[in-house]
Amino acid sequence: MQTVQQTLRLPAYPRGFHLITQTIERAFANELRQIRTGMLHVFIQHTSASLTINENADPTVRGDFERYFNRTVPENAPYYQHDYEGSDDMPAHLKAAILGHSVTIPITNGRLNLGTWQGIYLGEHRNDGGSRTLVLTAWGN
Amino acid sequence: MQTVQQTLRLPAYPRGFHLITQTIERAFANELRQIRTGMLHVFIQHTSASLTINENADPTVRGDFERYFNRTVPENAPYYQHDYEGSDDMPAHLKAAILGHSVTIPITNGRLNLGTWQGIYLGEHRNDGGSRTLVLTAWGN
Amino acid sequence: MQTVQQTLRLPAYPRGFHLITQTIERAFANELRQIRTGMLHVFIQHTSASLTINENADPTVRGDFERYFNRTVPENAPYYQHDYEGSDDMPAHLKAAILGHSVTIPITNGRLNLGTWQGIYLGEHRNDGGSRTLVLTAWGN
Repeated sequence: MQTVQQTLRLPAYPRGFHLITQTIERAFANELRQIRTGMLHVFIQHTSASLTINENADPTVRGDFERYFNRTVPENAPYYQHDYEGSDDMPAHLKAAILGHSVTIPITNGRLNLGTWQGIYLGEHRNDGGSRTLVLTAWGN
Repeated sequence: MQTVQQTLRLPAYPRGFHLITQTIERAFANELRQIRTGMLHVFIQHTSASLTINENADPTVRGDFERYFNRTVPENAPYYQHDYEGSDDMPAHLKAAILGHSVTIPITNGRLNLGTWQGIYLGEHRNDGGSRTLVLTAWGN
Repeated sequence: MQTVQQTLRLPAYPRGFHLITQTIERAFANELRQIRTGMLHVFIQHTSASLTINENADPTVRGDFERYFNRTVPENAPYYQHDYEGSDDMPAHLKAAILGHSVTIPITNGRLNLGTWQGIYLGEHRNDGGSRTLVLTAWGN
């Protein structure tokens, strides 16, 4: 068994949900190819952006994600005490905790064993989040 | 260290939350027995069903999960744009993202090291989701 | 590659969100040091407390987490059927499922490779949850 790891700097994305499956597969292709059976872990080193897996085909799903989470995690809630980093900051922390800081995906024959309709989503929850850093780790035989 | 992996096809479940701990333990018993110290990862290859861990004893907990998530993730929200696959589809994608696409559980002495009251839940979020496919991967010494 | 595992008993925490990064790093320091490149998995063996990663600096963020989740997962909802363990019990199960039962963090050069502002949160969702048990597992080269 072996473990391979790499840091990946993403370009800045606008607020919303974005498909990053191909970005990850391309950056880590040589490492994934070395693993016949194993796992990929993608970790985001931030607390106001998230990673999740969802539908990879229709962009209106990503738009509905943004609209839903903006309603269920409001800005300017009267009980927020952490409000000095902008009205989008505290909701971004909550959205990141609800959606998660990482995804873990099986590797089979050197490739991500995702379902047909699955893609990796970056959730950028800040208005101006800037570049985000991922840590990619894969292990297996 | 070694890695073992298997695909597991579940029977169709009705909409709601279902305990699948024993199904997974039985299907993967020989593989789990080979690992003294390690991890099990259970991955669902779908975007409208979920996996999580929760209370394994009282079925009213699973009923309350269904009632809660139906209220917090409504059908027919006026702002949904992804509405052509049925009123249960977009809520199913959101529930799957909130609850998660996988669970990761320690293995100790060839067995899942769950707490006394913990079980693995399948969240079937479609009215007629059909059979779902899991990828089981275990690794360790 | 190797796998190391340890059970860690936490002291009782009051209801709310608590930073436990240092507690975990200290309890598992010798094990983490043995791994140059790998992963740490922290698993909570309970269904009414949770683990997540979020902002490690400003305690008002943890307070806002508690206030937000108390509102979005209400006590005494009229549709709850699982109500005989106290009004805080069913909400605790739901919060645990939303936030998650585990965190997985890359290890680089024998240390947790967290972002600057990331810490591990224990979410204690019961009024009197008592001591909680974690299973720590690390693997890698």
